[in-house]
Amino acid sequence: MASLIDSLARSTDSKILLLVCDGIGGFPGPSGKTELETAQTPNLDRLAREGSLGLLTPVRPGITPGSGPGHLGLFGYDPIANLVGRGVLDILGTGVDLRPGDVAARLNFCTVDGDGKITDRRAGRIPTSEGEKRVALLNANLKIAGVEAQVYPVKEYRGTLVLRGADLYGNVTDTDPQALGGLPLLAQARDARSARVAEFVNQFQCQAAGILKGHEPANMVLVRGIDRYDALPTFQERYKLNPVCVATYPMYRGVSKLVGMRVLDGFDTWEGQIDALERVWNDHDFFFLHYKYTDSNGEDGNFDGKAKAFEHVDSMIGRIAALRPAVFAVSGDHSTPSVLKAHSWHPVPLLLWGEHVFPDDCTTFDERAARRGGAGHMLSQDLMALLLAHALKLDKYGA
Amino acid sequence: MASLIDSLARSTDSKILLLVCDGIGGFPGPSGKTELETAQTPNLDRLAREGSLGLLTPVRPGITPGSGPGHLGLFGYDPIANLVGRGVLDILGTGVDLRPGDVAARLNFCTVDGDGKITDRRAGRIPTSEGEKRVALLNANLKIAGVEAQVYPVKEYRGTLVLRGADLYGNVTDTDPQALGGLPLLAQARDARSARVAEFVNQFQCQAAGILKGHEPANMVLVRGIDRYDALPTFQERYKLNPVCVATYPMYRGVSKLVGMRVLDGFDTWEGQIDALERVWNDHDFFFLHYKYTDSNGEDGNFDGKAKAFEHVDSMIGRIAALRPAVFAVSGDHSTPSVLKAHSWHPVPLLLWGEHVFPDDCTTFDERAARRGGAGHMLSQDLMALLLAHALKLDKYGA
Repeated sequence: MASLIDSLARSTDSKILLLVCDGIGGFPGPSGKTELETAQTPNLDRLAREGSLGLLTPVRPGITPGSGPGHLGLFGYDPIANLVGRGVLDILGTGVDLRPGDVAARLNFCTVDGDGKITDRRAGRIPTSEGEKRVALLNANLKIAGVEAQVYPVKEYRGTLVLRGADLYGNVTDTDPQALGGLPLLAQARDARSARVAEFVNQFQCQAAGILKGHEPANMVLVRGIDRYDALPTFQERYKLNPVCVATYPMYRGVSKLVGMRVLDGFDTWEGQIDALERVWNDHDFFFLHYKYTDSNGEDGNFDGKAKAFEHVDSMIGRIAALRPAVFAVSGDHSTPSVLKAHSWHPVPLLLWGEHVFPDDCTTFDERAARRGGAGHMLSQDLMALLLAHALKLDKYGA
Repeated sequence: MASLIDSLARSTDSKILLLVCDGIGGFPGPSGKTELETAQTPNLDRLAREGSLGLLTPVRPGITPGSGPGHLGLFGYDPIANLVGRGVLDILGTGVDLRPGDVAARLNFCTVDGDGKITDRRAGRIPTSEGEKRVALLNANLKIAGVEAQVYPVKEYRGTLVLRGADLYGNVTDTDPQALGGLPLLAQARDARSARVAEFVNQFQCQAAGILKGHEPANMVLVRGIDRYDALPTFQERYKLNPVCVATYPMYRGVSKLVGMRVLDGFDTWEGQIDALERVWNDHDFFFLHYKYTDSNGEDGNFDGKAKAFEHVDSMIGRIAALRPAVFAVSGDHSTPSVLKAHSWHPVPLLLWGEHVFPDDCTTFDERAARRGGAGHMLSQDLMALLLAHALKLDKYGA
């Protein structure tokens, strides 16, 4: 199916805008209404009246997706065949020069005592500047035979390790025991071809202990989320699109980079994101706009906060719609009901708006209306084909 | 799934009637109603009240199908795994004796000047009788070593070339340059096993130039749509049905022949089709009735014409229903909204009527009612199983 869509895609001037409200789907609270039903969203409701609603199942019925599979599905990639590690997605999103075939891992500076036993897994949460100093020390002194090892700072006690070389595979266990009082673990390969990387990681740990000795409180490192970065076919290759990502969080920027999107910088508010969107409107034909706080309020169990977040989203909908994309879709990567304080398996509402969208009878944008919507129920993975179709970017199949 | 249905199919006396209104699905016009909603269709609406509606996605969400995949899906064949060239479908529909393994192509008589350069790609649209004369000339004089080559007249300047022999493959480029002033192109194989057919086509062109010399204006041929005809398992083999096609256009007659239907002749009006249907009612258990003008009006952008075409369809519904099929389905191979003047990806309405159809609340037959219909949303490919089931032609699966 993916190859059918790809073979029919054609490049045109029409524009597709996909707004992902992270963790969009909710669950009825004491009032009987969901967070989205509770929120006052007159602009989204207007688009619902003019367009059509539907319901997306992110991965498969009953599956609670992480953000990676949630977004890969929305982007038209099979989220089961293409499981990408969180480490790789985060690292891609930080701007580190990660290349296909590299193995990357998340790294914590920690404190060990004279016997090498862990006394603080976060090295007293050292400031970013202290983390950066130790990264520089490591890079100046590391020397692992057979592989190029490079460390990058992230924030405070956190960093990234990148191993570059031929035939590296990352199916390797963490060295972080997730507990105090013990020694860092030895990395172990889960399959034969990953044995070299396990050895490299163990050499890295060993050398880091020597290099960081005396640099308390951050006098050791722990490694986790070791994973190989494999390239996916890009939006350009698959859909003949020229896509751009307008997101603030590394994870979403990472998954966008993975599929070939240009990732915009220079904003850290929702309003700033819309400014950026408007600035690049003439330069692209696919726009991925990501709003984070619907999810984070859901994760916090903050029902009212999540409802308010939808109102925050809604405040910019007029400006977005005024750009007149050929098709404007609003949906999410998964549900995050406040009552569960976590991602869930519940399907997510979809709003489609545009000239060729067949209107239905829905008058509000919410989970319940979406179930009755004219766009029907489908897998998230099928959304991209619909977006391309509505933007007249797919050739006819067969004569 | 196809093999499951096939393994359960049993032969019974009950009758299935499938009416395909080509390009059935529309889009709201200025009045807010679609073509089908605008049309006065009291007979279809009566069946909607008594039966059940649903929505079919012809190939996959977002895919705009050609007529071939659109019909193959309705007939229960995977339209992605079974892509059949338009050339083969058209030729099958003309009554030419095409057999599995043959390579067939569409042929234009054209005019070339003294240097062999094309001056008219349609040879001044010579009358059919002139085309037939040149076809006879070619058949009397062609001699291509290693293959049996036969030319058939179609209409005016158009004909068909059939190559018959062992191991022929048709992945070969056209010789029609689609432009004036140049020489006919050399056919080229797109894969190694098609090299022999490319050579045969080039020999055919070369011999035709000699045979037709002096027979201006039709003194040369151009070949296009070269394709191998591969047999599909028939309705008899798959469903134990004895099917018949009542269609006027070659394309739809061709796809019917492809799946083993008897193809009726002797009518060229809708009323004539219904007469023919009544005549053969006792001879078959599956009836494919095809109405063309809903599509052609849509393609012309003629909203009112398409609405009138539905009224034309409706005028015969009483006679069709009076035959009392066990199940009567009305749907289409794809949408052709007048506003797009082309096929589209929008799903198509389905009407199911018969003794065992679970009724729903729909009171009219149209796209919007179909979305809420009791038969739900499904792929066109799943329709045949439903039709067989409602006609009690499928055994129980498992104990």
